[in-house]
Amino acid sequence: MEIRKIQPKKKQGLVLVITGNGKGKTTSAMGMALRATGYQMKVCIIQFMKGNLYSGEWDGVKRLDGLVELISTGKGFCCIEGSKVPYSEHRRNAQDAVALSMEKIKSNQFDILILDEINNALNLKLIDLEQVMEILNKRPFELHMVLTGRDAHPEVIKIADTVSEIIEIKHAFRKGIEPQPGIDY
Amino acid sequence: MEIRKIQPKKKQGLVLVITGNGKGKTTSAMGMALRATGYQMKVCIIQFMKGNLYSGEWDGVKRLDGLVELISTGKGFCCIEGSKVPYSEHRRNAQDAVALSMEKIKSNQFDILILDEINNALNLKLIDLEQVMEILNKRPFELHMVLTGRDAHPEVIKIADTVSEIIEIKHAFRKGIEPQPGIDY
Repeated sequence: MEIRKIQPKKKQGLVLVITGNGKGKTTSAMGMALRATGYQMKVCIIQFMKGNLYSGEWDGVKRLDGLVELISTGKGFCCIEGSKVPYSEHRRNAQDAVALSMEKIKSNQFDILILDEINNALNLKLIDLEQVMEILNKRPFELHMVLTGRDAHPEVIKIADTVSEIIEIKHAFRKGIEPQPGIDY
Repeated sequence: MEIRKIQPKKKQGLVLVITGNGKGKTTSAMGMALRATGYQMKVCIIQFMKGNLYSGEWDGVKRLDGLVELISTGKGFCCIEGSKVPYSEHRRNAQDAVALSMEKIKSNQFDILILDEINNALNLKLIDLEQVMEILNKRPFELHMVLTGRDAHPEVIKIADTVSEIIEIKHAFRKGIEPQPGIDY
């Protein structure tokens, strides 16, 4: 069978939003990173909220021949009961992630910039809507941007080209099954 | 910051279904494959319906140090107008993919088996519900199985541990933007 390779007549950066309460938002962004390496594209992933819990993608992306850079900011889950890190420190971290995002945009070294859990960071007021808008508005024409996390802001959805909402129909942990490595983290 | 690595007390294979009409089903499965390689887990991906259109993940997974095997069956999109391949040939291909899935299950060499677009194959009657049930029932206890594709069958959803439905809120192609490499394929 002959494999067809298509190319768009016009290369254009897309803004993608992956939101909703179901499993698969960060996972889907990781899948895009993997797919992009099939084209030798360069990807930067900035994780806004991921905390101190190891996740397999941190080492997974290291296999991708230097094409994918993953930077995890954040100091554990924010704003849940029993959290030992004060809100002000979470906000400072998220603000650093905003500055880092702007830096990566200006570097012009990437084809895709993934802002993982940025929607939550905005929702929890760790960053401001104006900051997200500035990031989106400053993006070069050919840069793809992927924004993940539940509760995406309506203004972000308005600006986006492609928006998927992932609905939880069922989740294993609701029947008492522990999270499993490689699947859940 | 100290990174916590957790391990479940009980390792258990999960059945995951990723369905719905939105973007991100295959992508999310690819993300799980990437994440799993962070644990040196072995993954087999069998694509039931993907056709003769090149997709970046085909070369992306080759970067993963032999941990991920991807086999694409299928001869182009099935059952759409203008398709040159007769239905009987599509069915034969999908039947081969079922046999291959059973083989991979029996080989006991994988931690995750991804059956990409199997839900569509079932919906288009290229395979039968009994065959999908047999695959699910024959899986070893620790094998994770991921079934993707729109229109997941209710019986498959019933058996699954985690089910996500991806809803299309917006898609770039609806405003005339061409599919972009690394993002859409």
